[in-house]
Amino acid sequence: MNHPHLPFAAKRAFPDVLFTELQALLGERVSTQAALREHHGRDESPFDPMLPDAVAFAHNTDEVSQIVKLCAKYNVPIIPYGAGSSLEGHLLAVEGGLSLDLSEMNQVVSINAEDLTVTTQPGISRKALNEALRDTGLFFPIDPGADASIGGMCATRASGTNAVRYGTMRENVLALTVVLADGRVIHTGTRARKSSAGYDLTRLFVGSEGTLGIITEATVRLYPQPEAVSAAICAFATMTDAVNCVIQTIQLGVPVARVEFVDALAVRAINKHSKLTLPETQTLFFEFHGSDAGVKEQAETVEELAKDNGGTGFEWATRTEDRNRLWSARHSAYFAMLQLRPGCRAVTTDVCVPISRLAECVGETEQDLRASSLPCPIVGHVGDGNFHVAILIDPAKPEEIEEAEQLNQRIVERAIRMGGTCTGEHGVGLHKMGFLVTEHGEGAIDVMRAIKTSLDPHNLLNPGKIFQFHPAS
Amino acid sequence: MNHPHLPFAAKRAFPDVLFTELQALLGERVSTQAALREHHGRDESPFDPMLPDAVAFAHNTDEVSQIVKLCAKYNVPIIPYGAGSSLEGHLLAVEGGLSLDLSEMNQVVSINAEDLTVTTQPGISRKALNEALRDTGLFFPIDPGADASIGGMCATRASGTNAVRYGTMRENVLALTVVLADGRVIHTGTRARKSSAGYDLTRLFVGSEGTLGIITEATVRLYPQPEAVSAAICAFATMTDAVNCVIQTIQLGVPVARVEFVDALAVRAINKHSKLTLPETQTLFFEFHGSDAGVKEQAETVEELAKDNGGTGFEWATRTEDRNRLWSARHSAYFAMLQLRPGCRAVTTDVCVPISRLAECVGETEQDLRASSLPCPIVGHVGDGNFHVAILIDPAKPEEIEEAEQLNQRIVERAIRMGGTCTGEHGVGLHKMGFLVTEHGEGAIDVMRAIKTSLDPHNLLNPGKIFQFHPAS
Repeated sequence: MNHPHLPFAAKRAFPDVLFTELQALLGERVSTQAALREHHGRDESPFDPMLPDAVAFAHNTDEVSQIVKLCAKYNVPIIPYGAGSSLEGHLLAVEGGLSLDLSEMNQVVSINAEDLTVTTQPGISRKALNEALRDTGLFFPIDPGADASIGGMCATRASGTNAVRYGTMRENVLALTVVLADGRVIHTGTRARKSSAGYDLTRLFVGSEGTLGIITEATVRLYPQPEAVSAAICAFATMTDAVNCVIQTIQLGVPVARVEFVDALAVRAINKHSKLTLPETQTLFFEFHGSDAGVKEQAETVEELAKDNGGTGFEWATRTEDRNRLWSARHSAYFAMLQLRPGCRAVTTDVCVPISRLAECVGETEQDLRASSLPCPIVGHVGDGNFHVAILIDPAKPEEIEEAEQLNQRIVERAIRMGGTCTGEHGVGLHKMGFLVTEHGEGAIDVMRAIKTSLDPHNLLNPGKIFQFHPAS
Repeated sequence: MNHPHLPFAAKRAFPDVLFTELQALLGERVSTQAALREHHGRDESPFDPMLPDAVAFAHNTDEVSQIVKLCAKYNVPIIPYGAGSSLEGHLLAVEGGLSLDLSEMNQVVSINAEDLTVTTQPGISRKALNEALRDTGLFFPIDPGADASIGGMCATRASGTNAVRYGTMRENVLALTVVLADGRVIHTGTRARKSSAGYDLTRLFVGSEGTLGIITEATVRLYPQPEAVSAAICAFATMTDAVNCVIQTIQLGVPVARVEFVDALAVRAINKHSKLTLPETQTLFFEFHGSDAGVKEQAETVEELAKDNGGTGFEWATRTEDRNRLWSARHSAYFAMLQLRPGCRAVTTDVCVPISRLAECVGETEQDLRASSLPCPIVGHVGDGNFHVAILIDPAKPEEIEEAEQLNQRIVERAIRMGGTCTGEHGVGLHKMGFLVTEHGEGAIDVMRAIKTSLDPHNLLNPGKIFQFHPAS
């Protein structure tokens, strides 16, 4: 499907001489092969692919800098590419240009176990990173559903199920190496846990979706593997009961590591996909991290809150294999939901509201969805007030696309009206550009544009994303 | 003392007509009275005062916007003023202009207890805010030594003793209202706990020290008052032993709420000032937050680690009055240290290093200080790797100023060499401008300058701070 409302700028020319110069630099690591361009012109969003003119694979910061300088010379856009797991069209080459694939820059640069930090190249995936950390007793907690790349996770300010306890990429990136639009290389931040040394450039690039610079190295925080971990699952008659249980858990200050809402339809999808037999009703998944005693205390407190809110069948899983099965099922939810309707694509909503408004927001949304003919399972990182509706559409049917877009629009407007945001963790990409104005107001978007102008005046870096931007010249 | 190395730009003209127009807007709330200008041209830094031409007191965002528009019309600098507790010369009117006092904008706008957030005006102090929260069961944890204003704490990215558990202003500000250099008002962020909606403007203004915009409202995170709190104090023969105890505490993942290092000389100062009888040796102050059982478990773990590292006299204080006496003594440390040498001023260092380098950094610093004739007590938020040396100088003696500056320079260079930062929490102000370049490199400072140019091209907002900046026209 193509987004119905976006006027894209014209495709820019990609001169042969640029390709020749890139080849001189990269040899076979730059290509115009059709299959490669196809692969790099799409992502997990429901949008029709928009292909780059060429794909290059960089191996280090210096190469990235030289590639950017060459593209800048010929006014050719550059789209940084990590794992390709964006849900919002971030990777589509709306003005053509070069897809700069960083997946071969996938090394751990240095583990500083004593400081609880690691420095990596951008192409390493979150699972590969945790694999590399296995013997340190430490882990990196941020876990979007997909096995995304660290660079991409920085670029979209990703989070996931652990954010309620460990924060998002906003809180966990300490320092970055960034290649700017003119090829200059800068370093932001240090390995110190905190700093008041000037403007917070690290957090300016975190969440900038490749539009301000290309992240070629990131230093992130790690956490000690908890001494004890236990998981729990609990069924509720209504979403409101489940959400109220979560609100009370957060307000009591229980340091829950994960708390996920899965609605009846999503449970059915998960059961089918992961061969589980969970009761197909509104469900909360919990995880607790701490000392043996601490974990027990947390689980008991939450069990009591669950009972107070009509929860039934509260079940603990302390064995690693049981927990892993549960959470791997939760992490597969996106793909499980897609299988509810073979051949479908998902329009995924991603609003996040203040937790006091969560029951109301999900409740109004449920009512709205009930009137729809489309299957719309709901899952949510409800400890943060963030939930996703996967609206399952047949991408060949314009009327379904239209219906999905209208549902999404009402969900976003509802969330913003309640003091929330149009995107909790997926980013803006192509899909939420209009909503960004509703959320922040034209004044704040003008400030974003002013920053974009100051750092990328010719709109070379991932053009056409986040906000409408027309370079001066 | 005047900073020996800074070339200030020339003082700008403050035309009579501007004063007349400000009077039409504010009546008696704008003044050129000498005592008021004196008061607003200084802060807690050791620098000689540099007076603004006038002082204005704003009462709301709209007034701030109008004041900024008037000053912009006449190219007159504006220096936002909160509690005046800066240690780095942030408030000095180096090019003259208007000191914009926000201390009368000191109201709580709304407490959202269910969401654990509060929205306040910028002039409210951290103590007044916690006073206002008293009946909610919630608290705002960020506690710089001074009773600073929330606006000033946003502007310097402040932290304090609780940051090891609760983070700094970087992690705890959700949303801001900001008046830009041309008087436009923007809103950044929302009350949602997380968001991926565009550039992180909130964190761009947090730590911008009044140079990018004037904060007129802030929404910050709150935390449930812990069910149980206990404090502990423990003496160590050497700083290295104390720091190693801290490193192991952090690496084990003990969720300690506070852990403060106080050296022998600082303990002596505290004893004298707060009428305590602590053993005058290297000391750690701890605080534990959690459930009854959790707090006990944390304290026991830390007691064991302290013993492993030669700690003696580990003492718990669970009674509120004992705890308060301990922490109020710690919070008075800055003023207690000043009293070690009547009539002195303190040149305060503020480096922060990765915790693995902390013992080495403090150790080399101790050796360096030993050769100095100046009293130099050390205190530190060591859980974060942050420590302060208060170099007590006679401001009338240029040779002491010079010695202090040289000590400070070596401390900063040492910290940066170890992967740390020149300022963990005080900000750059006038004092660390040179070090900022050493820390980040010219490239990153150029990016900061580009952002400053895009938002304040005529350098109206707190000019002469953070980095050298020469507007184009």
